[in-house]
Amino acid sequence: MIVFPEHRYYGESVPYGSKDEAYKNATTLSFLTAEQALADFSVLLTDLKRNYSAIDCPVVLFGGSYGGMLAAWMRLKYPHIAVGALASSAPILQFENIVPPKTFYDIVSNDFKRESSTCFNYIKQSWDEIASKGQTSNGLELLTKTFKFCQTDDLLDWLESAYSYLAMVNYPYPSEFMMPLPGYPIKEVCRRIDGGPDGTSILERIYEGVNVYYNYTGEAKCFELDDDPHGLDGWNWQACTEMVMPMSSSQESSMFPPYEFNYLSFEEECFKNFGVKPRPKWITTEFGGHNIHAALKKFGSNIIFSNGLLDPWSGGSVLQNISESIVSLVTQEGAHHLDLRASTENDPDWLIEQRATEIKLIEGWINEYYQKNEAVFDM
Amino acid sequence: MIVFPEHRYYGESVPYGSKDEAYKNATTLSFLTAEQALADFSVLLTDLKRNYSAIDCPVVLFGGSYGGMLAAWMRLKYPHIAVGALASSAPILQFENIVPPKTFYDIVSNDFKRESSTCFNYIKQSWDEIASKGQTSNGLELLTKTFKFCQTDDLLDWLESAYSYLAMVNYPYPSEFMMPLPGYPIKEVCRRIDGGPDGTSILERIYEGVNVYYNYTGEAKCFELDDDPHGLDGWNWQACTEMVMPMSSSQESSMFPPYEFNYLSFEEECFKNFGVKPRPKWITTEFGGHNIHAALKKFGSNIIFSNGLLDPWSGGSVLQNISESIVSLVTQEGAHHLDLRASTENDPDWLIEQRATEIKLIEGWINEYYQKNEAVFDM
Repeated sequence: MIVFPEHRYYGESVPYGSKDEAYKNATTLSFLTAEQALADFSVLLTDLKRNYSAIDCPVVLFGGSYGGMLAAWMRLKYPHIAVGALASSAPILQFENIVPPKTFYDIVSNDFKRESSTCFNYIKQSWDEIASKGQTSNGLELLTKTFKFCQTDDLLDWLESAYSYLAMVNYPYPSEFMMPLPGYPIKEVCRRIDGGPDGTSILERIYEGVNVYYNYTGEAKCFELDDDPHGLDGWNWQACTEMVMPMSSSQESSMFPPYEFNYLSFEEECFKNFGVKPRPKWITTEFGGHNIHAALKKFGSNIIFSNGLLDPWSGGSVLQNISESIVSLVTQEGAHHLDLRASTENDPDWLIEQRATEIKLIEGWINEYYQKNEAVFDM
Repeated sequence: MIVFPEHRYYGESVPYGSKDEAYKNATTLSFLTAEQALADFSVLLTDLKRNYSAIDCPVVLFGGSYGGMLAAWMRLKYPHIAVGALASSAPILQFENIVPPKTFYDIVSNDFKRESSTCFNYIKQSWDEIASKGQTSNGLELLTKTFKFCQTDDLLDWLESAYSYLAMVNYPYPSEFMMPLPGYPIKEVCRRIDGGPDGTSILERIYEGVNVYYNYTGEAKCFELDDDPHGLDGWNWQACTEMVMPMSSSQESSMFPPYEFNYLSFEEECFKNFGVKPRPKWITTEFGGHNIHAALKKFGSNIIFSNGLLDPWSGGSVLQNISESIVSLVTQEGAHHLDLRASTENDPDWLIEQRATEIKLIEGWINEYYQKNEAVFDM
């Protein structure tokens, strides 16, 4: 049986009768936490197994991204409920200073650089171009027109998130995870950025490139910027309470405008938006992360951390085996939780192999579980 | 460094400014849970280590009884914070139907039977005697006088808790854990019950015996029954929310009045006292317990479950090794977390040996921790 439980406060699983009520204030939102979600899943699985008279049936957890963190954490916290976890693209180390905060944007940048260093450079130069255009008398109007926004909006955010999402969904075949996109979409973005005829301005090139992300189908006439296109309200609350993931972009190695994560202004912003102060050290206190190899070398078992190195979240994930049964599967060409997508006819061999390895490991956990259970009954 | 953190809502660690406020109602009491206590300890230890610049210093958890459960659970839930746990007399299996509910009172009863079967029989007969006396016209007055109560009170509770506590503190040397008592106090109780001259009534015998528990110093002139002599208010809340431990006493094997645990009347009582319904399956959902051998055989490490078989709580504890490093240390003659008491000149050899084994195991955890840390640094 495959169970796909929805996380509380997302989709249709909102408490207080409606999303408006649930998201009303810090008091009603206070039950939106990772710990509560894990407890929900534990209660659900226990009840399900009881209702189906399948109490001894082994459970394997699957999750990607935040769901991957939950899968790994749940195996660690609820070993009596699940025999193992496949945590795909789970950045459980993207907290405090465990990994350098510039990791994420460095990986995004490298995804562009590997396609084309001129493309990388055009993007890197574009920020100054935008800034100086913006300072001219009709600059905003000009930019709004160049980028075909329906009204003036935050251009930098719009570009930065396109690049970041492109790196995450840089899948080897056409997909529609965030937006409808071709296979290896960054290749296509850079083809358009690089391909403009001589005399094409940097901003026109950028527009052509980013169009791949925002308008690959060509249906949009102008761009209406939606503050929350993917229903991330809930995530913003989580990011302002538990899930504080510091990120910077480096002057040297990234193609983004240099930016140093500043905890105090982050805290201020959270207080302004939600009336709460974040707890930046809570996740590592609750779930660990520092010295994870030493902490888990002889503790816990049966977790696969799978990652594709094109995925910017891989930088905050577990990329080395921790023990014999807490293992890392890394693909050079994989992007964000690619292994958890449905298989397609276009799957490259390395992806087919990765999934085969995962299945073999999971079969091993299940076999071992049944052997242990028998051994216990024999006693 | 030895840190002895107080559990929230107990002693001086009460929220809301005062015990009266903290214990006011179900809303203010709702933060009194085992999970919150573990999170408190985790935050405390993390902060302490940071403040003392001792981040890499290994932590070992110690606890007895409920504290022993917390120690074991904390090692399972927070392996990144503590390298191991000594869980003494920790009845983590005393939930739902994991162990037979009659276990506790059977062990208490056997503690008396092993001293003297006549003593056991006198006690077993005494309940009928009390009941029939109580039904006579001046029966209550008579009983109140026989047992020297300052006023009429719940005699059965008074006797039952004396017997149960006596079994818990049946230590091999004089102690003052609950009450000032001689070494092996049950032996003394039975000596007095059995030793009355011919013609001594059963109730007089019982009175003489129970006097060992309630008045060993001989200072009490009459007995004022205090509802909460050991500050257990908080525990009653916990028992009515998470810590539901079903207990019965068997007609055949126990010396207590037969009693079958009835969840519905328990629930009613809890609702009457605190306005909440218990969650009898929550502890095993959160911390496990069912099939604990199978669940933990290859998960987790470095826990000692120590138990003395005279202790009625040993029936709900882990009495067999689960794995190479989740081990059980059992003494035939030990009582409730005897190993965690200060050493005395009267310690029997088996107790000295038990503590030496514990120290050796803990030293092993610490050495292993340092070796792993070095190995990680070498990488």
